[in-house]
Amino acid sequence: MNEEELRVGVVGASGYSGAVTARLLASHPRLSLTFCTSDRRAGELVREELGAPAAGDLRFEPNAAALDLAERAAIVVLATSAEVSADLAPKLVARGRRVVDLSGAFRLASREDYPRWYRFEHPAPELLPPRAHYGLPEVFGPPPPGTSLIANPGCYPTAAILALAPLLKAGLIEGRGIIVDAKSGVTGAGRQAREEYSFAEVDEDLRAYKVLAHQHTPEIAQALGRFGEAKLTFTAHLLPVRRGLLATCYARPLRGATSQAVAACLADAYARSPFVRAAAPAEATLARVAGTNLAIVGAAADEDVVIAVGAIDNLVKGAAGQAVQNINLLCGLDETLGLSHLHRIAP
Amino acid sequence: MNEEELRVGVVGASGYSGAVTARLLASHPRLSLTFCTSDRRAGELVREELGAPAAGDLRFEPNAAALDLAERAAIVVLATSAEVSADLAPKLVARGRRVVDLSGAFRLASREDYPRWYRFEHPAPELLPPRAHYGLPEVFGPPPPGTSLIANPGCYPTAAILALAPLLKAGLIEGRGIIVDAKSGVTGAGRQAREEYSFAEVDEDLRAYKVLAHQHTPEIAQALGRFGEAKLTFTAHLLPVRRGLLATCYARPLRGATSQAVAACLADAYARSPFVRAAAPAEATLARVAGTNLAIVGAAADEDVVIAVGAIDNLVKGAAGQAVQNINLLCGLDETLGLSHLHRIAP
Amino acid sequence: MNEEELRVGVVGASGYSGAVTARLLASHPRLSLTFCTSDRRAGELVREELGAPAAGDLRFEPNAAALDLAERAAIVVLATSAEVSADLAPKLVARGRRVVDLSGAFRLASREDYPRWYRFEHPAPELLPPRAHYGLPEVFGPPPPGTSLIANPGCYPTAAILALAPLLKAGLIEGRGIIVDAKSGVTGAGRQAREEYSFAEVDEDLRAYKVLAHQHTPEIAQALGRFGEAKLTFTAHLLPVRRGLLATCYARPLRGATSQAVAACLADAYARSPFVRAAAPAEATLARVAGTNLAIVGAAADEDVVIAVGAIDNLVKGAAGQAVQNINLLCGLDETLGLSHLHRIAP
Amino acid sequence: MNEEELRVGVVGASGYSGAVTARLLASHPRLSLTFCTSDRRAGELVREELGAPAAGDLRFEPNAAALDLAERAAIVVLATSAEVSADLAPKLVARGRRVVDLSGAFRLASREDYPRWYRFEHPAPELLPPRAHYGLPEVFGPPPPGTSLIANPGCYPTAAILALAPLLKAGLIEGRGIIVDAKSGVTGAGRQAREEYSFAEVDEDLRAYKVLAHQHTPEIAQALGRFGEAKLTFTAHLLPVRRGLLATCYARPLRGATSQAVAACLADAYARSPFVRAAAPAEATLARVAGTNLAIVGAAADEDVVIAVGAIDNLVKGAAGQAVQNINLLCGLDETLGLSHLHRIAP
Repeated sequence: MNEEELRVGVVGASGYSGAVTARLLASHPRLSLTFCTSDRRAGELVREELGAPAAGDLRFEPNAAALDLAERAAIVVLATSAEVSADLAPKLVARGRRVVDLSGAFRLASREDYPRWYRFEHPAPELLPPRAHYGLPEVFGPPPPGTSLIANPGCYPTAAILALAPLLKAGLIEGRGIIVDAKSGVTGAGRQAREEYSFAEVDEDLRAYKVLAHQHTPEIAQALGRFGEAKLTFTAHLLPVRRGLLATCYARPLRGATSQAVAACLADAYARSPFVRAAAPAEATLARVAGTNLAIVGAAADEDVVIAVGAIDNLVKGAAGQAVQNINLLCGLDETLGLSHLHRIAP
Repeated sequence: MNEEELRVGVVGASGYSGAVTARLLASHPRLSLTFCTSDRRAGELVREELGAPAAGDLRFEPNAAALDLAERAAIVVLATSAEVSADLAPKLVARGRRVVDLSGAFRLASREDYPRWYRFEHPAPELLPPRAHYGLPEVFGPPPPGTSLIANPGCYPTAAILALAPLLKAGLIEGRGIIVDAKSGVTGAGRQAREEYSFAEVDEDLRAYKVLAHQHTPEIAQALGRFGEAKLTFTAHLLPVRRGLLATCYARPLRGATSQAVAACLADAYARSPFVRAAAPAEATLARVAGTNLAIVGAAADEDVVIAVGAIDNLVKGAAGQAVQNINLLCGLDETLGLSHLHRIAP
Repeated sequence: MNEEELRVGVVGASGYSGAVTARLLASHPRLSLTFCTSDRRAGELVREELGAPAAGDLRFEPNAAALDLAERAAIVVLATSAEVSADLAPKLVARGRRVVDLSGAFRLASREDYPRWYRFEHPAPELLPPRAHYGLPEVFGPPPPGTSLIANPGCYPTAAILALAPLLKAGLIEGRGIIVDAKSGVTGAGRQAREEYSFAEVDEDLRAYKVLAHQHTPEIAQALGRFGEAKLTFTAHLLPVRRGLLATCYARPLRGATSQAVAACLADAYARSPFVRAAAPAEATLARVAGTNLAIVGAAADEDVVIAVGAIDNLVKGAAGQAVQNINLLCGLDETLGLSHLHRIAP
Repeated sequence: MNEEELRVGVVGASGYSGAVTARLLASHPRLSLTFCTSDRRAGELVREELGAPAAGDLRFEPNAAALDLAERAAIVVLATSAEVSADLAPKLVARGRRVVDLSGAFRLASREDYPRWYRFEHPAPELLPPRAHYGLPEVFGPPPPGTSLIANPGCYPTAAILALAPLLKAGLIEGRGIIVDAKSGVTGAGRQAREEYSFAEVDEDLRAYKVLAHQHTPEIAQALGRFGEAKLTFTAHLLPVRRGLLATCYARPLRGATSQAVAACLADAYARSPFVRAAAPAEATLARVAGTNLAIVGAAADEDVVIAVGAIDNLVKGAAGQAVQNINLLCGLDETLGLSHLHRIAP
């Protein structure tokens, strides 16, 4: 591709996911960060606000300028709320931009799901999947030629689907009655000025939230549903950590689902995936993935259950890193470009 | 009871559970703390080492003196490892002491379970349940007259059984296929000088451990098994918090298991239990229970699943507080004595 | 005193300091909690919101009802902002109530200090000290007979003054050039819905704030100034912990200020103070005091410097506990009543 | 330089500093990681143990092989204890290797200081400074030609010296009576299997340690002493965070030391230093530096005091990153190579 086709802008670059996306793009060896918008930081230097020296003299622009700024970019990352994304993406696609959306606005195939799970009527149902590509490359492959809109997967779905999909595909687990018990660091909730996310409330605490009502439930079910019937219960918990997410998943075993078989299934599935590592379940820890685009998955079984776990950094493989990986693939680049240098945070 | 019958000693009072037990006894309005043993603190003042002014001039004694010291007490709390408890408890019972054991040494009814789950041959199988009373008063009532040995429940079992037992008893959930996904603060592992429990390794991390192999699995199954067939999968996770434990449990619903019905079932079951509160599942948080002897349980349901959660402080309702509650009941005292003044830690 | 004179109300009981005060009063053996106000919790049961079973059926009332409610109480604790306290306290005193104010509204003797440090003109300068009694009992004794207004000391001043005052009084340190480098847990900032206090921003961070401009500077200087000239620099840091505060203080040694002498000076000064313990500086840790009304102080010296440290729980000895201690003294009760049962949080 | 001269080995690569050094070298664009030793990980793949994919097939070797392995490298980083470094470095230098030592073994110029501060007799005093170069490039410049041994500065000294040296050099502060009150994350203590560093003990705590006796005291004094008389008090505190260090320093102002002047002095001093940023004191936070090789320094003043603060990541600018920066300079490379891509951890 020529340089013009590798220009990327970020709308909403002061939220946690947007900020990490902007940093990754700023130091990317091939892609270039062309613009960043943020109302709260408009006018400020990107490199100072984000601690991203490679951003040079780029400054934040107001969000209202996004459509105009998009003229200068081939690809636009939307790090905006689902409602804002649902409004902006169609306009950008209509102008010939390629869009990677970090929100849930284009992940669910059925327009009926939006009022229920996202509390708005979808304004552009014609762009929902299969028109939008669900960008989980290790499971669903690279975006097909001509893709103009990528729905970047949610953080919880990324971890759960990576852990479960190969087992379901291989017929080692039942698709009905799956339990996903997931725990995420606080940045998963985005930048927040709410008392319930204050340090004094979150520290030393653990809580389940949105019980039986989390919007990632249909997203996981839809993705797993591509491999057979899938019916699941999903519970999210808020962890007193900044970054990292663990999904502990339970399914009923089908014939042949020994510990050895399920472990081998995951190892085979990801043998050629640079960003997914199969390991023993107890090795799928936040410390081993936080700061990187790596997912660690693991599985074990007995006669009653298959346990499959997936650990990721919610901001990297669960958002910004996966977006960069998707852009790499969209542009025909090596999918690890701009991501392989990331070290884990844990010493 | 006369004063002599209210004298209590603690063996192993420098571990976390033993230390909290000693503090609770020192400030108890009726029970008196008669001795504390600890090899590492032998000779030191209990009040200074434990921050327990009410302990007066009492000093730690070496563990080897436990049997002799027990002459001065009517009741002995063993805050020792399962192997040490299995050795000491029979000797104390033989000398007419009443014993409350914080370890797992007398929780499982079958001697065959000990080599498998605790890695030792049980030296006194005649004292296993039903001879030993499993001391979870809200579910199994006060110790029957003549009880000389109470097996204080494990921390994970306390939370899981409190959440699940009423639902199973009421026929609202299936006993087969129960999943208990539990998360505990670090003090649950006891006082540790191991790298894997060092701050730099645990902070900002979350990990599953002893997957499909945790010794609390048969304990929960045995307790639930009193209400019908019970078969379960139990997973423990290590949380980066000091105190507190949350068990998120999943079961298949039986007829009538609506959200309203399961919530009402828990509310009814614990309406007269001062230390168990029924609430919405999202209110069963570590912050609301840490520091106190309170358990918060909650349940919700849809057509596929019943979710039941239980939150406790692993060191209080999950160990020391429940031990004091059991001693209160053993002595015919109000079960809240010495426990009702505890405030939660969270401001 | 008769029961009526022991009735206490709390205005602003849903902030952290107010909530802890209400809990301590609810379980106090002699004082009774007569009312609690809080706009955000008006109508709710105090026992449920605060986890304070002893509060019985008491419900929160709106703040606007404070003056009317005060008719039922002999003593009113103001857990309000300095500006609100400055308005309310004179009205309550005029109606014959005794007031303990947790804010800074009545701590500084000079009205000129208020515009500079608190950004408002003081509406009732006639009530400033010496009319208001600065309630640090271990240093300034119990409130004199007839005291109607107690200014409860700030959290940072409590730790710093306890560590420094005896040394200054004994002529072991110079009063000029004192440095107080202090670090506090997040609850010191009160209940906050601001991004800068969100978990994701505070966790794993440390920051100095209000450098050379913190309003506790003149409060410490005024208190130390009672023992000679005192000129000091005070720096506050925000710690990623919930509760606890450490002040590390540096002063130039005067004749005789050996390590032994400064340690002995503190030990002597607090030999009869149930809530202050002198120890080695490295033992003045948050873990040893958090959850209790205890302060630990320690000092060491070489030829160049005297280091004096003080550790407290900012919400207890630094606010609510000290308020209860002051009320005990005001009512002629033992100063430890309702406070001696508090255990430390650290296991 | 040719490729051979850019080969670097790490002795002791499983400790925190050594592991971070190995990761930085593995992904360095010019330097190559030639060997890593670690007894506990001998035989394991470096890329898996350290989460460093760029390490390829390199495996850990036992420490005893260090001297032999050094034949293949031009430069050896010693991430070993001071006593081990003092023994190894002379042997490596004698064989013509260039050595960067992360310990304190070659930082102090006077052999008499070793028994007092490090508790051993120095076996090779002829290599102490000025023979060994104290590698703080922003203050003391690049290593002079022919340097064979670099003493990489301690973490506390790095932060304190960067904050204070320009002010002392400019005559804005007195060199006598300096106070350095510093706070460090737990990784500063190295990988530890000791109870006092366990999560349950460190979490929610803060403690001063080695009061008036920390071995970094003479190191800071010696470095500042190059700009005039320097006499200081240094106190270290253990923070409940993994990475990051803040030094809050106090000095008496000399003529002209206004807030504006001290701020300008730091800004000028580091205007051309890519890894030191001058900012307001409240902006020198752990969150802004952790994960990167950046130091943030800031200063303010009033008539009584100059406050100067310095924040770094103790493992990067305080150890491994500074080592790589020193190796870059030693090899005539751009000092930012292999370091400029590091993002901060805080989102």
